[in-house]
Amino acid sequence: MIVAVTPNPAIDVTYRIGAHAPGETNRVLEVRRRPGGKGVNVARVLAALDVPVRAVLPLGGDAGRWLGSALDIPFDDVPISGENRTTVTVAGDGHPTVYTEPGPEVSEAEWAAFGRRLAECLSGARFLVVSGSLPRGASPDVVVAWVRIARERGVRTLVDASGPALLAAARAGAVVKPNRAELLDATAASDEAVGAAMLLRLGAELVVVSRGADGIAAYTRGGVFAVPAIPGVHGNPTGAGDAATAGLAAALAAGRPLIEALRAAAALGAAAVLRPVAGEVDLPAYQRFLNGAPA
Amino acid sequence: MIVAVTPNPAIDVTYRIGAHAPGETNRVLEVRRRPGGKGVNVARVLAALDVPVRAVLPLGGDAGRWLGSALDIPFDDVPISGENRTTVTVAGDGHPTVYTEPGPEVSEAEWAAFGRRLAECLSGARFLVVSGSLPRGASPDVVVAWVRIARERGVRTLVDASGPALLAAARAGAVVKPNRAELLDATAASDEAVGAAMLLRLGAELVVVSRGADGIAAYTRGGVFAVPAIPGVHGNPTGAGDAATAGLAAALAAGRPLIEALRAAAALGAAAVLRPVAGEVDLPAYQRFLNGAPA
Repeated sequence: MIVAVTPNPAIDVTYRIGAHAPGETNRVLEVRRRPGGKGVNVARVLAALDVPVRAVLPLGGDAGRWLGSALDIPFDDVPISGENRTTVTVAGDGHPTVYTEPGPEVSEAEWAAFGRRLAECLSGARFLVVSGSLPRGASPDVVVAWVRIARERGVRTLVDASGPALLAAARAGAVVKPNRAELLDATAASDEAVGAAMLLRLGAELVVVSRGADGIAAYTRGGVFAVPAIPGVHGNPTGAGDAATAGLAAALAAGRPLIEALRAAAALGAAAVLRPVAGEVDLPAYQRFLNGAPA
Repeated sequence: MIVAVTPNPAIDVTYRIGAHAPGETNRVLEVRRRPGGKGVNVARVLAALDVPVRAVLPLGGDAGRWLGSALDIPFDDVPISGENRTTVTVAGDGHPTVYTEPGPEVSEAEWAAFGRRLAECLSGARFLVVSGSLPRGASPDVVVAWVRIARERGVRTLVDASGPALLAAARAGAVVKPNRAELLDATAASDEAVGAAMLLRLGAELVVVSRGADGIAAYTRGGVFAVPAIPGVHGNPTGAGDAATAGLAAALAAGRPLIEALRAAAALGAAAVLRPVAGEVDLPAYQRFLNGAPA
């Protein structure tokens, strides 16, 4: 089983409108609400692949109740006194506009309870994925604690985070999976190879860098592996990174060679682009992409 | 007592952000949630004026539960199976951007139950205010029914609505209070006086037209009354129209002369502009404005 932690889950609201008129009143034509957050998306893709998965996430307030009622994957929630956040995506005539709430303040006692619950869930698990931002005010140390809890149980961890949380995860010895911009931002490195080497020096087990249209690379102490992106894929890039994370985690958890894990990640990321909603993948397209077919 | 109907109440969410970046991801710095809808704002201003008031509104879903828990005025709610809407106001560096959800579908049976509850609330009431849009798909006939229910109980009605609901309210014999743009839009008239005359011919008891910076005018079968706006008022115009409606309703309910009602409306509208939140008024400023002082 893979355990997927979402530190800052969200209600993802999408507003379909006509022409976007900033500074004016925009009538919303259609509203969609779904459970969101990167770890939730990862878990949903793993479930679609029939990989046993369990989500672990902090839930609180009316929003937390709604998330608990709407999640369609197995999950354990740790109650928090704050209210989970909402993200609003406005889909009009141009590129979508996104508003992201900062999320609740989670107390140290609540994070401690979260760690205890995570430890229970990790008994018998093969792999831990931690994906997405931390709520405001949360220390990157919580990520370090989760990686340690997993390691004490013989479980490897993949962390998809940015900024200080990315650096903390590397120090704790996790597999880290930034995209190129996050890597350069967190390390202040001049190029990808330099940044990846810094994270390896900090202690990362493996540094996987998603390069968008340029594919995916994995930096190890022994060298670099890279696979190209699936060519000719057009659609909705939201959630493609989460699908790639799911593919990587599933392959690493199953003990597949690294190059196969990267191919699975690239193919699943492309299969997610073909679906309009984050957390979903086009499974037949995934199989075609794995077999080397273009889009 | 004044009864204030909000046909389509909302959770009013305000996102404070930095520079607004349409087409990109905008981090929300602060989130505020309040019960909203024009009738709710009117009722809150009446309560601030110590005018006995009771709100009547349809509530449903998680949003309806939240509205019921957050309303700080006396209210009767009629349960509906749909979910109340949310409006999102994004306050960044320029003029605010607003996204308005369409609201729930309310069945005929639910509207019938709403009319029965309204009839109960109107026993012993002096005045009815109906303010704000109808939910999607609702027939303007519901407004006609409410005006009739009030009239059968000897209660006068003021309707602040637009489009077909404004025309229906005029036909039903209500006091109507469009702003100039709504008046011209609903009547397709070339100027304000022509549009107001049309609504009077349809049957409106009185047509009050809010002219923004140009003050307020009231068209009766006997002539036109007008008062200027309070000069030099700067601030947040959201909710100013609702405060003016509250002032008008309170004065008419108390049997004050029309010109005094218009003065109260202009002064309260200006006193609302001085407050950052719709549904609130600066009461000392209101008294100053009533006494002829500028801002």
